Amino acid sequence: MRIDELETPVVVVDLDRLEANIARFQAYLDRHGIANRPHIKTHKIPEIARMQIDAGAVGITCQKLGEAEVMAGAGIEDIFVPYNIVGGSKLERLATLTRWARISVTADSEVVVRGLSSIMRREALTLPVLVECDTSMGRCGVQSPREAAELARVIARSPGLRFGGLMTYPNNEHTDPFVRQTKALLASHGIPVERVTGGGTACMWRVHTHAEVTEHRAGEYVYGDRHALRSGVMRLEDCAFKVITTIVSRPTTDRGILDGGSKAFSSDVRDLEGHGLILEYPEARVYTLSEEHGHVDFSGCPRKPEIGERVTVIPNHCCVVTNLFNQIVGVRNDTVEVVWPVACRGAVQ
Amino acid sequence: MRIDELETPVVVVDLDRLEANIARFQAYLDRHGIANRPHIKTHKIPEIARMQIDAGAVGITCQKLGEAEVMAGAGIEDIFVPYNIVGGSKLERLATLTRWARISVTADSEVVVRGLSSIMRREALTLPVLVECDTSMGRCGVQSPREAAELARVIARSPGLRFGGLMTYPNNEHTDPFVRQTKALLASHGIPVERVTGGGTACMWRVHTHAEVTEHRAGEYVYGDRHALRSGVMRLEDCAFKVITTIVSRPTTDRGILDGGSKAFSSDVRDLEGHGLILEYPEARVYTLSEEHGHVDFSGCPRKPEIGERVTVIPNHCCVVTNLFNQIVGVRNDTVEVVWPVACRGAVQ
Repeated sequence: MRIDELETPVVVVDLDRLEANIARFQAYLDRHGIANRPHIKTHKIPEIARMQIDAGAVGITCQKLGEAEVMAGAGIEDIFVPYNIVGGSKLERLATLTRWARISVTADSEVVVRGLSSIMRREALTLPVLVECDTSMGRCGVQSPREAAELARVIARSPGLRFGGLMTYPNNEHTDPFVRQTKALLASHGIPVERVTGGGTACMWRVHTHAEVTEHRAGEYVYGDRHALRSGVMRLEDCAFKVITTIVSRPTTDRGILDGGSKAFSSDVRDLEGHGLILEYPEARVYTLSEEHGHVDFSGCPRKPEIGERVTVIPNHCCVVTNLFNQIVGVRNDTVEVVWPVACRGAVQ
Repeated sequence: MRIDELETPVVVVDLDRLEANIARFQAYLDRHGIANRPHIKTHKIPEIARMQIDAGAVGITCQKLGEAEVMAGAGIEDIFVPYNIVGGSKLERLATLTRWARISVTADSEVVVRGLSSIMRREALTLPVLVECDTSMGRCGVQSPREAAELARVIARSPGLRFGGLMTYPNNEHTDPFVRQTKALLASHGIPVERVTGGGTACMWRVHTHAEVTEHRAGEYVYGDRHALRSGVMRLEDCAFKVITTIVSRPTTDRGILDGGSKAFSSDVRDLEGHGLILEYPEARVYTLSEEHGHVDFSGCPRKPEIGERVTVIPNHCCVVTNLFNQIVGVRNDTVEVVWPVACRGAVQ
């Protein structure tokens, strides 16, 4: 089937570009001796995770246990879940998962560490736990190297747990100083820091400038989106991920309506102007989204589209678009090669 | 199972409130002799559509063919798809669907009408087509009563089609004048307007003030959300739809992190401040969302939550949250009564 026979809205992934994106970033990290642990939140597809592993990734990153369960079930053997696992049933699931695959997790408080230790001790398992460090993100994470070192010591002495290193996101000028200070504090207690895992696609080509980072977690780099384009880390010709839509209405001279809205593109703005880049009409502005309609201003375009015309959109944020579709279509030279179910879609738990 | 045994994040729907919301709005429309045709985009669940029909709705509204196919497959007999159906394969699907259920659609251009007529004539079917009127929304729709009347005449003379009336959204002060002018123009050609369908939850208790409206399409009224609360059409005690989350991190005195982010709540803001109302901490501010984390400022709260505590969130926009979950849990008196798959989830085509 040709790409222009697919019903819209549809997500197509250019397989040549996908493979090139995977290979290029792997080669970069290999060159600098940094472990690659891609974040699968972007694609949620075991087949793509397998491509990343086959290219040289040491394992994958999942944000939720539900994602990790799907990936482990598909045979992925090394999974990092940088999330505070809290609550009895989640801890039971974590214990089960730890029997299927090499799992590591994070914690940022003693409460979380106590829960992890309790279940792992009961099950006679050993779980590597990294300390999540808030080095500027303002999300989870301990707030200082002192707190990081204290929590690392708690982990190190907790039955069923092993201190697994430090985790942060995104890599920036605060990363190395925070890590160095934490390492110094831990050195005085004889506790080594074996793994320092950073993350982000916007900083993907500067990972090697962080002397302390031993492992990197990037997600969007496989696909690319407007955010990655704006960051300057990917070029338009690297973008593998596109949403093909149809113009279903041209109510005024300048207005056109796409058959995809916030239920296809999400409402993620990410400080970008508008909701996507239309490749055939780069001057067009996707100025608002209803649930199933994209509202476009074509006034800046020398030529304006007809009803029924198909247009190709690079969305603002590929990771959330993935989660809105039941499947994505892999294409090569505009011909459909594979249809992948988004197996981890909706795995919020 | 009790509500507090469910893993989080999870959507729970209070069945008493759901039933009351369905009954109350049906009684209001019945009292005023206005047909009720609820929009299922809010719930995407055939069982709830059936409850709406059983309460007295004349049929349902679906935004996409994919939703209508699921609903028709579940036995719903009267389905309105107020969308421009464009393209060969979509028209084939529409023809098939027209054999399963009483279908009506809209059009806002001759191009769309020609496509509909062509397939319906070929299949020897008759499809009611309403004219979509842009009475202020600025989305699809003809721009004036003159254009509406012209398109109605095109539909009326198109083989395989029947002019089915006028459609608009949302009801407001422009609705009646637009409809009256269109009717006057059509009367001179002997074409009656049998059905005028309006829509919206924010205007749900003023439907009867629009003398021209014969049918109403509301979606959110079954569940309720912050948008409906802000509009003043629903009270907090009417809200049937809640997202239960767990506090997984308390990195600073004031900051708390929920285990649900934009992949649970969506990024829909709808001119509201923050991303949800936390019932147990009404002064808290859900100030940003990562994909799997909700960032909350608890500085305004007299008491602050512990890690592991569960909190209940009324989201900004229930319709897009529905589409992010694989299932929702129906509860009565805090006990689970039913788990419904979100059958039309991801039906964007």
